[in-house]
Parts: sequence; structure tokens; C-alpha cells
Amino acid sequence: MICSSTDTHAQIIEAAALAGKHIFCEKPIALDLPSIDRALDAVERAGVKLQIGFNRRFDANYRRVRQAVERGEIGRPHLLHLISCDPKPPPIEYIRVSGGLFLDMTIHDFDMARFLVGSEVEEVFVLAGVLVDSAIGTVGDVDTAVITVQFTNGVIGTIENSRQAIYGYDQRVELLGSAGAIRTENNYSNTAILSNGHGVQRDLPLHFFVERYSESFLAEMAAFVDSVLHDTPLAVTGHDGRVPVVLALAARKSLAEHRPVRLSEIEQ
Amino acid sequence: MICSSTDTHAQIIEAAALAGKHIFCEKPIALDLPSIDRALDAVERAGVKLQIGFNRRFDANYRRVRQAVERGEIGRPHLLHLISCDPKPPPIEYIRVSGGLFLDMTIHDFDMARFLVGSEVEEVFVLAGVLVDSAIGTVGDVDTAVITVQFTNGVIGTIENSRQAIYGYDQRVELLGSAGAIRTENNYSNTAILSNGHGVQRDLPLHFFVERYSESFLAEMAAFVDSVLHDTPLAVTGHDGRVPVVLALAARKSLAEHRPVRLSEIEQ
Amino acid sequence: MICSSTDTHAQIIEAAALAGKHIFCEKPIALDLPSIDRALDAVERAGVKLQIGFNRRFDANYRRVRQAVERGEIGRPHLLHLISCDPKPPPIEYIRVSGGLFLDMTIHDFDMARFLVGSEVEEVFVLAGVLVDSAIGTVGDVDTAVITVQFTNGVIGTIENSRQAIYGYDQRVELLGSAGAIRTENNYSNTAILSNGHGVQRDLPLHFFVERYSESFLAEMAAFVDSVLHDTPLAVTGHDGRVPVVLALAARKSLAEHRPVRLSEIEQ
Amino acid sequence: MICSSTDTHAQIIEAAALAGKHIFCEKPIALDLPSIDRALDAVERAGVKLQIGFNRRFDANYRRVRQAVERGEIGRPHLLHLISCDPKPPPIEYIRVSGGLFLDMTIHDFDMARFLVGSEVEEVFVLAGVLVDSAIGTVGDVDTAVITVQFTNGVIGTIENSRQAIYGYDQRVELLGSAGAIRTENNYSNTAILSNGHGVQRDLPLHFFVERYSESFLAEMAAFVDSVLHDTPLAVTGHDGRVPVVLALAARKSLAEHRPVRLSEIEQ
Repeated sequence: MICSSTDTHAQIIEAAALAGKHIFCEKPIALDLPSIDRALDAVERAGVKLQIGFNRRFDANYRRVRQAVERGEIGRPHLLHLISCDPKPPPIEYIRVSGGLFLDMTIHDFDMARFLVGSEVEEVFVLAGVLVDSAIGTVGDVDTAVITVQFTNGVIGTIENSRQAIYGYDQRVELLGSAGAIRTENNYSNTAILSNGHGVQRDLPLHFFVERYSESFLAEMAAFVDSVLHDTPLAVTGHDGRVPVVLALAARKSLAEHRPVRLSEIEQ
Repeated sequence: MICSSTDTHAQIIEAAALAGKHIFCEKPIALDLPSIDRALDAVERAGVKLQIGFNRRFDANYRRVRQAVERGEIGRPHLLHLISCDPKPPPIEYIRVSGGLFLDMTIHDFDMARFLVGSEVEEVFVLAGVLVDSAIGTVGDVDTAVITVQFTNGVIGTIENSRQAIYGYDQRVELLGSAGAIRTENNYSNTAILSNGHGVQRDLPLHFFVERYSESFLAEMAAFVDSVLHDTPLAVTGHDGRVPVVLALAARKSLAEHRPVRLSEIEQ
Repeated sequence: MICSSTDTHAQIIEAAALAGKHIFCEKPIALDLPSIDRALDAVERAGVKLQIGFNRRFDANYRRVRQAVERGEIGRPHLLHLISCDPKPPPIEYIRVSGGLFLDMTIHDFDMARFLVGSEVEEVFVLAGVLVDSAIGTVGDVDTAVITVQFTNGVIGTIENSRQAIYGYDQRVELLGSAGAIRTENNYSNTAILSNGHGVQRDLPLHFFVERYSESFLAEMAAFVDSVLHDTPLAVTGHDGRVPVVLALAARKSLAEHRPVRLSEIEQ
Repeated sequence: MICSSTDTHAQIIEAAALAGKHIFCEKPIALDLPSIDRALDAVERAGVKLQIGFNRRFDANYRRVRQAVERGEIGRPHLLHLISCDPKPPPIEYIRVSGGLFLDMTIHDFDMARFLVGSEVEEVFVLAGVLVDSAIGTVGDVDTAVITVQFTNGVIGTIENSRQAIYGYDQRVELLGSAGAIRTENNYSNTAILSNGHGVQRDLPLHFFVERYSESFLAEMAAFVDSVLHDTPLAVTGHDGRVPVVLALAARKSLAEHRPVRLSEIEQ
């Protein structure tokens, strides 16, 4: 189980693979492709299993959306909209070494986009800004972004990120298809609705990822253990860990050059 | 931990108390008051702790309603409406020995009514029928009921029970007060909403008590262990286990005699 | 169109019938049965049409519930729960001459109960109190009530009334049946949901009957005009205007004598 | 009141202005800027009033979002997401002369974006495709699009358009700000929720603009009449009618050239 800081992931993966251990590693594998590729090569040569910690794939809401796509409940997907906002920015020291918004935060959404639509991404375009905290800009990062995503199967998507949704973690998705649409809501600690002289209200949604995704963290681990014990296919492979990094690098380039960037430009 | 069939609870409580053990016992303590009172006496003489398994008090939704009352968020309570329906009736053999709808099913709602309003009940009136399955009537029970409840503090309440809500477990409450109202919704396995050419829909609510109350079962046990370890007051006492039985007996009498019945009539 | 004070309705109906006019009259026809029966006799002798102003039958929400019953979408109805609360009590002078809660306010709910379930009521039981404003008690009325209703077809119902839901008009219904359940929500002036650091909230529901039922007032009038123009059956007949008065008188008797009262006791 | 086909709007505006008439004109004023500018010049010279038919500004949901911005209820706006989908595509003959998706359909959303955020747009980027009906592609149009919008005040927005949301008109907005977020839902003909053995469902949303925006059509007309009668400022000016056309032309250019396009490029 590799839950250390990102800059040590690839190296530990290699060491663990050499030692013949099956590996669960937190996302992202690394912030650069050469490190990732070395790690994935080591895994392949050793013939061990490597599952990447994209826990949201195990969340009941996202699973239900994926299921709707697989069952054809919404027909052929057309438009994806992912909303993913944190309750507040992490400390500036963290942001400085995080690899930036796309590698640190959007990377989960890039994985989710691929997972839900069931297709690879061809091109991204980014519009972003420093709207939440100017200090984030001073370390060269952005805190608010819309990432437009063109999938190879024709689906068009947008990912909406903010480092600060003051009401708490905002984790939702909408997917419109030829035969219908499916959308999810935030999760709450209770269902109570209070009406008084001022309005109709409920408590805030679950505050952050620890509360919101507690069940999916357990489920991803159970799935990993199950794959190892019964030698069954992994739910999130090393390849699934690599692609979102390519997407994040493309997003970074799109932001820098203010133009749509194809993933093939990153792979070269 | 006494999780055996109801007719053995009181006797095991007495034995455990004699052995100086702290006791967690499933509801109801017994189906008759003399057995309950003997058991509670044994507990008191032994100076051990006894917590009754009214797990719903530990559910996040009901806790939030209780909190609203305690904090004065809805002012002084006026009207309580409890909805409590099972997805389908238990086997007839179970119903035959269950003590009837009020002692088997409504007993949870009687506890919840006292817990939420924070007052004792003075009188009940029952309207009930056999609407779900005529076999239930042949063993002398009802499957559908409205129990009207008069609290000593003036609050008026209704409890709505059915052995069959075909869409799954229905567990909700509404409480109207002088300064507002609070209500809860059913719990679901996911938040996804699917819109197609026929309608806007979501999956069924959590099916039955095992799914719906899984967290509250853990929480009640944690609370019991905590009370024992730190010798703190119990969240659900032996008295809390006794009163709902009185209420159920009053409900049974109200149904039989088709008139409002005061709890004092049962205590005599 | 008779929209004068209640004590003049019956007399104007008789005069209008004598004049050969088709009549639309606000509810209730009168507060006593002899006056109602004289008015209905006059209408029958004159062969004119008489529609009573139970506008809620034309409301989209209640119509949809009725439709669900008619189409069998919920199977055979078992349990009805009607919630009907005003935002604040009328002036004491009004209450004094209103005929009391049951004839003034619950009368709409009695009509709705018959309309939705499609069956007559056999018996009522009332639990009520003065919880909102003690001044209402001094003029001999109650401001908070639960009316338990036994229908001839076996359905059990409850009507929940309060003179004060501080958040605004509360007009909802739930109907549980053998194959499903249907429930309605309050209506709002907009669908906006605001999330901030304190909670997730929306504006108050439509404040009172003028806003809430504006469309149904238009629709009932259009239906009346249509019935007159095309000589088609009325949507709400004189008989539909009479029965809720019988129910209200039974409710009053139940409250006074603290026992279930059969409608046949009132008809004698 | 100019409700003729789009290609006649500008010419009739000029004629009406010359005749000294106050003018209400449906959107868009014209599909090209020179025609619009000639019409607006004529209006200005004649000193008459010209209101453009952006009726959605008068819709209760959008008004509430605008109000939240004005009152500071969500702080400083950061991210706008507009969803605007039709239930089904218009006939191909209509699409052929419509000016294309951006001038025909998105134009409402461009107006709404400016109205809600209270800022002008600087640049747009379009990702679009023919996913609904290939016939739409054969006449040179698209049926599915995401338009990314950069506002001058820093706000980032996306507009999501589809010619076909099979469940009916989908008209929603979300606006995230520094102190909160506000979002609206679709409007429905009733609030009834039906639960049966298959799921929990409600009827489809209001089907199309006639049902969905009926009240706003009345309100925009009332506002126009009011402005004329009392010589007060118009709610939607000729300038408000011109800018969305500029936006639509920029969107068209962005789609053709697959790059972000600044509005200043269109104005040259």
C-alpha cells in the first residue's frame, strides 16, 4: 500500500515490484510520464498487480451513472458535465509541490470522465483563473477552471473545478444521452429538512473527501484484496493511472498556450 | 448481548444481572409487564447497566430531528407524524408469535415518539385494518394502522404503520412546531436521478432495516460499550424499554374496544 | 357566483334557483344541514346547476394523485395522510363566526379526502388542542387537530390541521396503496437552491391560498362555465358540498365527546 | 409587436421607428450586425422604445439567481453553468434558415449569461458536434455544443446546448461564487412523486418553452407596456438584443476555426 507523498510513488512501485509484491498505489503515480512508464514497466516485468487509488470509481453514485451507460439506460452519451469542488484550498506549501490543479485535483475527474463515458479523450481546452485566493496565483497555479473535453467517441464534456465551494465538497455529475440523462447529487449526513420563517433548509453536504468517500475507500481496498486473492482483473489498472496524467499535462499546456491541445501532443 | 427470541429476553436479563453482567437486550424486553418489571428489578438490584436495542435513536435523521427540538429550532412542538412501513409482511408463523403489530413493529415508533417529542404519552387511539394480506387477519392481527397519540405536554401525534410499502422500507418523520417544522426523507443507496422519455426517476430506497439502519446498529453498540467502559448514563434505559410495551398494550386495547385508551388503564 | 359570507349562501342559492340561474357557490353551503337541504331542494326543483367552490379538486397536484388512484398506479388505496396548515390564524372575530376549525378549514380536506380516495367516510375521530394561540380557545375553537377518518371501502386516513405553519401554507398529501404510493409537495415561487456556509436552502413555499391555488380558481370557474355552456356534469355537485359539512359536524361531536363518531349519528 | 420571421425584424423595426411607434421585437433582431445597427440607429433617431424578447429574464427562477448576485448572497461570482436543451430538434427546413444553433438557440443563453453575471463576455470557445441527428449536419449546423465563456470580470462560464433532451425542455443554471452557490431546477406541471416496485418517479418536466415560460411571456409584455406607459427604462434594450448576436457570431467563428475567439474580432 503506497500512500506516501507523490514524488516517492514511482520509486516505491519499482522496489515493490522487484520484491514481487502486489501493489496498491495512491494517485497520481508520478507527475511526469517517464517516471510513470518506468514504474509500469517494472510492474509488467515482475508480473505483479498494480491498482491505482481512484477510489471514486467505487462510489455508489458514480457506479450508478456508469451502470446507466452500460445498460443503455440513457442511450448513446452526448454531453458530460462533472462538478468537482473542494471546500477550501489546501495550504500554499502543499499547492507549491502539488503539480498544480490539474495533476492534483482534476486528475480524479479525468479518471471519472474516462470511466463514466467509457471512451478515451482526444483533446482538452482549459479556461482557468485565480478567483479564490491570489496567493495561489503567486505560486503559479490556478484555483478555478473549466476543462472542456473531446472524447474519441464524439462525446463532449466539461469538468468544473474550484478550490473553494464554501458550503462543502461538491461532487456531482450529469450525463445526457440520446435516450435520457442521469445526474447525481451531493451526499449529506442526514435527510432532515427544516422550514422556518426564513426559508426551507437542510444541513451542509458531507464536508470533504474523508466523509464523502469513506465507503469508496473501503470498497476499493476490498476490490484490490479480492483481485489479489482470486487473481481477477483489477478495477483500476496502471494504464488507468497513467492516462489522467497525460490529460493533466495536456490541460496545463492548454492553459499556458490558450488553445485546444490534443493528447497526442503530450505523448510525443 | 441478548438477541434471542423475545420470550427469552426477560429470563436471560435476570440471569445476566444475577451474574453481575452489563446487559444489552433487543426490544421488546417482554410482551407482558410483570415479566418486564421482574427483569428491571433484577437489573436494579444487581446494579448493572441495561440498554435496550432501540437503535433508531442513533440514526442520523432522527437524531437531527431530536436536536432541532432540543435547540428550539422549531419552537414548541405541536404535531408529530411518524411513518413506519415495512417492505413486506413477515411469515405468518412469525406474526402468530410476534405479539401483534403494536408490540412487534409500532414499538419502535412508540419509542421514537417519546424520544423525539421529549414527553410521555397519555392516551392512544387506534384505527387499523387487514388491508395487505387477509392471512394476517386470520391469526388475529392487523397489517395497517394509524395510532393517534396524545402527549402529556399537549403535542398531538400520529403513527402510520403498514406491513407493506411495496417500494421498500419507509421510515420518515415530520414534526411541526410553533417556530418551524422539520421532516426527514427515506435513505437511498445512491443519489442518481434518471430522466427518460417516461419520467424522472431514482432507484428504490434502502430495502429494509438491515440496509437502512446499519450505521445505527453500530452506533448503539458503540454507545453501550462506551457507557460500560466509562460508567456514563445509558442512551436507552430499561424504563425506555418498558414504556413502549405499555403503549403497545394500550394500542391493542384501543383497537379491541374501539375507543381512546389512557395509559393509566394499562398500568393498573 | 355566490362569494358572500357563509350565512347568506343557502338563502341566495334558493333565490337564484327560483330565478332559474345556474349557480356557483363558495364553500360551505351552510353551517347546518337543514339550510343545506332546503337549498339543494330548491336547486333540484329548479333544474339548475350548482357547483360548490372546492377549488382544490382542480389543482394539478391533487388531480395527479386522483389520477394515480383511477389508473391503478398505486393499486388499492390503504392509507391517506392529508396535511393542510395555514400560515397564520385569521382574526379572532373571524374565528368566532367561522363555525370552527372543522367547518372553516378542515372542510376543504374532507372534500379532498372523498375526492382522492373515491369513497365515502363512515366515521371520524378527533384529537385537537389550542397550541397556537390561547385566544382561539377562549372563543371555543381549536387551532391544531388530527382527524382520523375511516372510509367505507376500508381505507384509513388522517387529516393534519394547524392554523399556523410559520413557513407558509402547507398543502400536501400522501396516499399509500397495495402497489405503490404517491405524495405531493408544496408549491414554490421558484426552484432556486442556495448553498452557503450555513446550509442549503430555498425560499419559502407560496404563502397562502391566493398564491398557491390561483390556477385552480381559474380552472374551477372554467369548468363551471363549460358545464353550463355544454350542459355537461358538474365537477363538484351540491351533494359534494353537503357531505363535508356532515363530516365537520361529526368531527365537532367527536371532539366534544372524545370518542369516534359515525356519520350516521349526524344524519339522524 | 414584431413576432414575424427573423429576416423581417430589422426592416419592420426601422419602419415602426419611423412611424414613431414604441417597439417590442422578438429575438434575434437580425442575423448580421449591419442590419442590427441600422435598426438600432433608426430607433435611436426616432426616440422610441425598443424591447427585445428575451423573456427568460422575467422567469422567476432566473430572476432569483440574478437577485442572489445583486444581493451578494453568493459573494463574487466565479463559475457559471447554463444548461439549455430542447426536447427535440425543429424541422430541418427551419434549421436551414435559423442562422444555426448559436443564433437560434444559444442566443437566449448568451443573453442569460450576461444578465445573470452582470458582466460582458470577452471571449468564447466552442466544442460542438452532430450527435442527435445527422440530417442537421447535412445542412451545415450542429446539434450539441458546449460554449466556454470568459467574462471581462473574470467569471468563467459554460453553456451546454442540445437540440434533444428526450425527457423535455431542460432549462437550468448554476452559479458558484466566493460566498456560496445558487442553482435552479426544471419546472414541472405537478409535484407528485410516485413510488412503486420499480422506482421513485415523477412526471416529466414542462415539455417546451410554451409551457415552461408562459408566465415570463406575460411578464415581459407587462414590463414593456409599463415602460411605455410610465416612460421608465426598458428591462431588455436594443443593445441587449445586439450583444448576443455578436456572441453567436463569435461562437460560429470559434467552431469553424477551432480556437478561442475574442468578441473584438467580430466587431471589427
